[in-house]
Amino acid sequence: MANSRYSYVRLHELPDPLLPSTFLILRLDGKGFHKFSSAHNFTKPNDRRALNLMNSAARRVMAGRELMGDLVMGFGESDEYSFLFKRSTKLHARRNSKLVSLVSSLFTSAYTFLWPQYFPDSPLEMDQLPIFDGRIVQYCTETEVKDYFRWRQVDTHINNLYNTCFWTLVQKGSLTTQEANSELSGTLSSEKQEMLFSRFGMNYNQEEEIFKKGSIWIWVEEEIMVENEVQEVKIDDGKRRIEEMEDGLDRIALNIPSSPIPSENQSRETLEEPKRRTKPTKPKRVLKLVHEDLIKEKFWTSGYGKGVLEG
Amino acid sequence: MANSRYSYVRLHELPDPLLPSTFLILRLDGKGFHKFSSAHNFTKPNDRRALNLMNSAARRVMAGRELMGDLVMGFGESDEYSFLFKRSTKLHARRNSKLVSLVSSLFTSAYTFLWPQYFPDSPLEMDQLPIFDGRIVQYCTETEVKDYFRWRQVDTHINNLYNTCFWTLVQKGSLTTQEANSELSGTLSSEKQEMLFSRFGMNYNQEEEIFKKGSIWIWVEEEIMVENEVQEVKIDDGKRRIEEMEDGLDRIALNIPSSPIPSENQSRETLEEPKRRTKPTKPKRVLKLVHEDLIKEKFWTSGYGKGVLEG
Amino acid sequence: MANSRYSYVRLHELPDPLLPSTFLILRLDGKGFHKFSSAHNFTKPNDRRALNLMNSAARRVMAGRELMGDLVMGFGESDEYSFLFKRSTKLHARRNSKLVSLVSSLFTSAYTFLWPQYFPDSPLEMDQLPIFDGRIVQYCTETEVKDYFRWRQVDTHINNLYNTCFWTLVQKGSLTTQEANSELSGTLSSEKQEMLFSRFGMNYNQEEEIFKKGSIWIWVEEEIMVENEVQEVKIDDGKRRIEEMEDGLDRIALNIPSSPIPSENQSRETLEEPKRRTKPTKPKRVLKLVHEDLIKEKFWTSGYGKGVLEG
Amino acid sequence: MANSRYSYVRLHELPDPLLPSTFLILRLDGKGFHKFSSAHNFTKPNDRRALNLMNSAARRVMAGRELMGDLVMGFGESDEYSFLFKRSTKLHARRNSKLVSLVSSLFTSAYTFLWPQYFPDSPLEMDQLPIFDGRIVQYCTETEVKDYFRWRQVDTHINNLYNTCFWTLVQKGSLTTQEANSELSGTLSSEKQEMLFSRFGMNYNQEEEIFKKGSIWIWVEEEIMVENEVQEVKIDDGKRRIEEMEDGLDRIALNIPSSPIPSENQSRETLEEPKRRTKPTKPKRVLKLVHEDLIKEKFWTSGYGKGVLEG
Repeated sequence: MANSRYSYVRLHELPDPLLPSTFLILRLDGKGFHKFSSAHNFTKPNDRRALNLMNSAARRVMAGRELMGDLVMGFGESDEYSFLFKRSTKLHARRNSKLVSLVSSLFTSAYTFLWPQYFPDSPLEMDQLPIFDGRIVQYCTETEVKDYFRWRQVDTHINNLYNTCFWTLVQKGSLTTQEANSELSGTLSSEKQEMLFSRFGMNYNQEEEIFKKGSIWIWVEEEIMVENEVQEVKIDDGKRRIEEMEDGLDRIALNIPSSPIPSENQSRETLEEPKRRTKPTKPKRVLKLVHEDLIKEKFWTSGYGKGVLEG
Repeated sequence: MANSRYSYVRLHELPDPLLPSTFLILRLDGKGFHKFSSAHNFTKPNDRRALNLMNSAARRVMAGRELMGDLVMGFGESDEYSFLFKRSTKLHARRNSKLVSLVSSLFTSAYTFLWPQYFPDSPLEMDQLPIFDGRIVQYCTETEVKDYFRWRQVDTHINNLYNTCFWTLVQKGSLTTQEANSELSGTLSSEKQEMLFSRFGMNYNQEEEIFKKGSIWIWVEEEIMVENEVQEVKIDDGKRRIEEMEDGLDRIALNIPSSPIPSENQSRETLEEPKRRTKPTKPKRVLKLVHEDLIKEKFWTSGYGKGVLEG
Repeated sequence: MANSRYSYVRLHELPDPLLPSTFLILRLDGKGFHKFSSAHNFTKPNDRRALNLMNSAARRVMAGRELMGDLVMGFGESDEYSFLFKRSTKLHARRNSKLVSLVSSLFTSAYTFLWPQYFPDSPLEMDQLPIFDGRIVQYCTETEVKDYFRWRQVDTHINNLYNTCFWTLVQKGSLTTQEANSELSGTLSSEKQEMLFSRFGMNYNQEEEIFKKGSIWIWVEEEIMVENEVQEVKIDDGKRRIEEMEDGLDRIALNIPSSPIPSENQSRETLEEPKRRTKPTKPKRVLKLVHEDLIKEKFWTSGYGKGVLEG
Repeated sequence: MANSRYSYVRLHELPDPLLPSTFLILRLDGKGFHKFSSAHNFTKPNDRRALNLMNSAARRVMAGRELMGDLVMGFGESDEYSFLFKRSTKLHARRNSKLVSLVSSLFTSAYTFLWPQYFPDSPLEMDQLPIFDGRIVQYCTETEVKDYFRWRQVDTHINNLYNTCFWTLVQKGSLTTQEANSELSGTLSSEKQEMLFSRFGMNYNQEEEIFKKGSIWIWVEEEIMVENEVQEVKIDDGKRRIEEMEDGLDRIALNIPSSPIPSENQSRETLEEPKRRTKPTKPKRVLKLVHEDLIKEKFWTSGYGKGVLEG
């Protein structure tokens, strides 16, 4: 920025660094999504296209060069997404406004860009754009980080059970929304599950995992055959229809060595010009979408979450 | 959010209110736009489509229900935009993260959504999405606020003069970019203007105002014939092609009474269902795009900026 | 501080600058002074020695080299004191913790040091030391600053009227504290004053100004005869008994030019070695204690407060 | 505080809570102590009276009711003192300004109050009062906390070795301060120790531990014979001459159960009215002054520091 006699106004821009060694969790929340989801006729209680779109946008955030691979875990439910930075991240000198605005903007950009692929028949409108606000929360201990994600997963479960009952009562039981609300008021979890079973023959436990547990993006190291890679890696081609994420092939390969951080140029080459070889390459970090139980310790000690709290 | 034994993690979300009576200026900056503008072959030194798109996105931010009419002025140049909140804004309790992420997200959403209208032949790509980071700066006095915008306008001028010379030397003078850079190194403003005139017959003063002074969105009160209004108001219809902004009709009518703030519902009705009457209505606040001199006091005392620092 | 492999821990010391152009008001509050005042048998409703001691400590803070003359006004009542920094102060780079701890410490040091002069028969004890906590509040406008001091003065008045009634009922009316409390519950200001007059013949308006309005330290420019100065200036001699503050001579001369800030050495010389001359010197800034009305504009426009909000 | 039309100014007092689960370390630094120590002829390179006074003031801070026993460790050298809060402290809702001003004030109060006992022949003066500024730094991990104290202890060692050499050269070697400075410039630690030995027959390792390692206050649980307790406990009696701290009896007994926090009244009773019994009581937490090595793990795992990082 050019200097002038007015440059003194820059001094008002105060520093806002986060602490050097905290775990940073950045959570995005859809703004006004009640209205937004109505306008686009989201399926109740869960709209699979909307969830897939959220997951695709989150994948783009985590896999992109912008975040340098420093987002080590993501968790999404409904219209919210939480991202965990690796503890030692030095991205943008850990400046609060910079990080929160950057991720909010990137997620929104991806969501808006990808929209037509997931809702081809319900185009966005200028007066009802998708918007996400964000905040960063700092945690000190591994337990706190695990409990954060548990908090969100319990929330997912409670909301989904309620919504499943509510919309079943309305859609299959022909209750008004008010009646459904009264019916459910004050009921326990077990009573809700019993009601689903006895009145509608539904076994809540057999509902899809993505609805009950939310979505988790996690990095895993995998041997990948390069011929496969060529097809899978090019997720960044916006013109291509993104495959459904629940299939087993749904991952992004990013050749991000843990240290040192690659330069932007190197990273781009890798993304854009994967070399065609047919023998197995060395392990790569790839993003994998899972719907695991985060409450039990297993996920963190021997499951996909192993190592996520290190470094 | 549902309560659970893990809810204690919410306590880590610390309050971050800004001071109650400061002027808030939120500035967005394009991230990686050097690369982004190359990828989409932006015209040098200025790409009119890109500037128009920035202005349209900014208009959407200022006019939208989300900001409740509390953004009283906008200033854009290149890939950055600054927004001034009215001093007394209580939007989202003046929480820093909330405001900066919300505006970053909304601007990005509008920019991405509008892109195809301004660059129909150069579609966005997944690995190079438009992103904007943001920060909020607090000012205490009217002089500081005026000097902030002067700082940005002087920056616009200095950069534009340099870029105009640089690209003229390259495009018309057939210099390499390195040669052009050497040629301009250390030259004064007057020397640059003289060079443009003597070697290329260009009068810098006759360059377009939008390039020399940047773009200013400002609210004005206007009598509007309702028949006109019907056409102009419906800017929020995303399917319609947005008119070029340089024409004299380029404004948004928003019937936002200064007090009290209208409820969301009222506001929407006004936006969506303007009543067809043919006689003049009472004054409305409409957004107007101008390219005025902000350095002189005139803009602030008797020009478009009059009143912008009140309330 | 010496460097070592452990020096990285310094990076955790985050910057905490206050905004560059806000008015800073630092308020100190006595901690546990209810108990403290009982232990030392403070006179009820007001103890003149205790107020004088507060004022002396505040004078020491404002006049001292440590604050460089940047405290332009002080206001005290009961066990609290507020200090206003000049708007443009750059003291300690406006770091919040630095300023608040420094002033809290200095005030406490002076209070503890001066104690024996005001309470010679009631020595301090180790388990009940005088302590003051502090906070800095930022204001943007002159009105806010004036209203801050008005807020404190109204508080002084309301508390003093209540306490005067309460203790008069107890001391002269022989009520128990509980009965006095009941008697006053829900009464208006006018009723309290009427009660004092009709039952005890007391005219509240004739109570001492220091009790009704609090104490204000303010800098004034005065011509001072140097022979006088010699006697008055040496307020920094801790062994000397400090004169009562209500006498007309109670001021501190500090030769602090408004700009530029004198170096520590220069300032000390002035304090310690006033030259003995017998003709009037140029105007000096001296601290003056007043008990004026801060509610009306007069104090700020033509009274002692004139100029206090400039610079 | 009484309400009035001016009470709105309170809204400017922004919240400043520290994170809920960080370790808080509050460090105090003497302000202008170079001058202060000269004025009172502190012995060079170390003044034992001054160090003892610092330690006594720190003990008063840690043992006092004001901090509720939440300061679990103190470390002092020269004119600085660092205090570690227990990780889970909720004192004053962890408000930054409140804590930093409170501790700065309390330490200063104790220092000023105790001064005459340690420097009976060199009374304080009004224009040169002892002042301490403070700041709170947040740490996340036990390693960081240990490294903080190691950082301070290494600093103690480096400074003391330098000062010991410097003042020995001046006092015994008859060098000027300038010559001593030149002589030491660029020398290694080993060279400094060799110089002390070969030229002055001094073995640095035999210098007093308090000079080489600084002073550490730590809580220990001890069986105390009540008859002893009676003599030792009453440290809060300001009139009594405080015993030298290096003797083995130098401790403060505070009957603070770890949970729940005792009410002020209970706590005071314990302090002021220890019951005279002659048989051993249950273990109490007592403050003990040590000069241990903090670099090695031993202090933290099996030494006095065991348990200090818990809770």
